[in-house]
Amino acid sequence: MYKHILFATELNETKSYIEDKVTLLQQLTQAKVSVIHVVEPIPNVYYGGVYGVMPGLDAEDSIGTTKILEERAKEVLLPLVNRLKLTAQDLHIPIGHTSEEILAFAEKENVDLIITGSHGVHGLQLLLGSTTNAILHGAKCDVLAVRLKE
Amino acid sequence: MYKHILFATELNETKSYIEDKVTLLQQLTQAKVSVIHVVEPIPNVYYGGVYGVMPGLDAEDSIGTTKILEERAKEVLLPLVNRLKLTAQDLHIPIGHTSEEILAFAEKENVDLIITGSHGVHGLQLLLGSTTNAILHGAKCDVLAVRLKE
Repeated sequence: MYKHILFATELNETKSYIEDKVTLLQQLTQAKVSVIHVVEPIPNVYYGGVYGVMPGLDAEDSIGTTKILEERAKEVLLPLVNRLKLTAQDLHIPIGHTSEEILAFAEKENVDLIITGSHGVHGLQLLLGSTTNAILHGAKCDVLAVRLKE
Repeated sequence: MYKHILFATELNETKSYIEDKVTLLQQLTQAKVSVIHVVEPIPNVYYGGVYGVMPGLDAEDSIGTTKILEERAKEVLLPLVNRLKLTAQDLHIPIGHTSEEILAFAEKENVDLIITGSHGVHGLQLLLGSTTNAILHGAKCDVLAVRLKE
């Protein structure tokens, strides 16, 4: 049914019920699973707050901040990758525009199902909603939007 | 994983690869499956054309036209229901606004996954796209958008 599933996750979306669905779909379909999280290179205090770093305090410039965000994402997502019985090679943390990077990866790697959260949390609702929208409209494959619980 | 799957279909979306996915997901999850198609009560020549009827020719008024569209939908979808090994009781053809009726049914019947096409065909792209969008944003459950092939 599906051969390559891409789990597109925010850092604050690493919720067990989404992981359970990814795991079950993997088991049911025997698909390869990749995990992707895109770091957007925008030095913004709120955005940094999600990652637990404060741009301008932890880094002197936006490149440094992006690097910190990337490291932080890896720190948060490696345990997820382990729980999904995947390896570090299955975790992808590109830097760029979220939906564009997800769609580019999906196309390049012949992904046939993108799994993503369908509703943001913690005030990022609008941003995450528009990402899901952009994925839905741009994807050349199926998209499973998992409804995030409040 | 899922207990009640709702397959929201257009008449021109009854494509075998979507049916195959519905069937497989049903088998994998052992979920109950319902099929829904909403008839919008708009007397419009193009819309009627999709159903193979011509408002104003086959019916004298919009109520009559809606009734014809409903019958036509049943005619087209009952074979689909049979192929999915469901019964006529699993087929729902409400009259109203598409996404509203789908969301209302989903909520009332405790649907936990809505499966829908993610891309319209035959010039209805914009309309169908906005329906998928409305479902995605309004749904209190997961949504699987199956990418329609051109």
